[in-house]
Amino acid sequence: MRLYDFLDSGNGYKARLLLHKLGLSYERVELDILNGETRTDAFLAKNPNGRVPALELDDGTVLPESNAIITYLADGSRFLPEDRLQRAQCLQWMFFEQYNHEPSIAVARYILRHTPEDSPRRAELPTLAEKGNAALEVMERHLEGRRFFVGEQLSVADIALYAYSHVADQGGFDLARYPNVQAWLSRVAADEPHISITAE
Amino acid sequence: MRLYDFLDSGNGYKARLLLHKLGLSYERVELDILNGETRTDAFLAKNPNGRVPALELDDGTVLPESNAIITYLADGSRFLPEDRLQRAQCLQWMFFEQYNHEPSIAVARYILRHTPEDSPRRAELPTLAEKGNAALEVMERHLEGRRFFVGEQLSVADIALYAYSHVADQGGFDLARYPNVQAWLSRVAADEPHISITAE
Repeated sequence: MRLYDFLDSGNGYKARLLLHKLGLSYERVELDILNGETRTDAFLAKNPNGRVPALELDDGTVLPESNAIITYLADGSRFLPEDRLQRAQCLQWMFFEQYNHEPSIAVARYILRHTPEDSPRRAELPTLAEKGNAALEVMERHLEGRRFFVGEQLSVADIALYAYSHVADQGGFDLARYPNVQAWLSRVAADEPHISITAE
Repeated sequence: MRLYDFLDSGNGYKARLLLHKLGLSYERVELDILNGETRTDAFLAKNPNGRVPALELDDGTVLPESNAIITYLADGSRFLPEDRLQRAQCLQWMFFEQYNHEPSIAVARYILRHTPEDSPRRAELPTLAEKGNAALEVMERHLEGRRFFVGEQLSVADIALYAYSHVADQGGFDLARYPNVQAWLSRVAADEPHISITAE
């Protein structure tokens, strides 16, 4: 398999982390999204949506969307529940992640890391902070009395939410306000094998 | 089952349409999102994210997120492929729908239908038009030579994308620019049984 990826991307990290946990070997192809490398004709032929991560399978099929990739990879493993409702609840949290969490927390982190201090995009930060804190509050409330997001063990839902939550401070978020989230982050990080977001 | 819903919502329509196709009976509870009825303490106790649709199962479990709901309901039916890769491709298009399609096309439609003509939110429309057309272009390209989004028959991926695509004109989008999308919309509408977005 081949993973089209960008090392600073939390979405890419979801795939990298799960591939590592599953012990699957793959070729990583770094595409610099800051230099338009996901918008070339060659890459658009693989993913018309022009985004990473995208997983190229051995038969040439290209599967984009980080949460589709990790659900595909997790099938049959300890990271995807067999129970129908629990599988749906994993999806529930992954859709929450892509709709409410990533567009605020990941975008705030992106702006702070990859735009100059006088960028007009900095004007987005107050709204992103409000929406990101609302997402963290939903997580904090759900994690009251729970060890993981779905069922009793780590699943793709945790991997999806961990990716940008554990670096939310880089987006200006104060995780000290969310003790349940902090304890959960430690539980996810303690699941072996683990790799950091910057590890290839 | 009980569906917490808002009749004008395309996200709610996904669930209504699939419940109708599957012949499942349910109680529909209308919550007026324009009057904050999804942000009451009573509803936040059911869905801490304060959004509809949310499906309350017979055991009291509440499942939010439209695409998680339809994937749950479709399990074992003709609307969810059994093949592992095709299931992942359904998720691929549902995540695309929630990340790229709904936040532009549904939001433009919402602003045009539910805000006054002098609303400051109207300033968002040019950016939403650009992003929405980019999403429709990705769909147009994928549908070249294809009848449905995944495999050879209608699936949850089509239901998810149909919901806001078939009323995209209400968001200011000109579907005449996308002949493949138009032909696909007709194929989805021709799958019986069918209901319209305003049907309870």
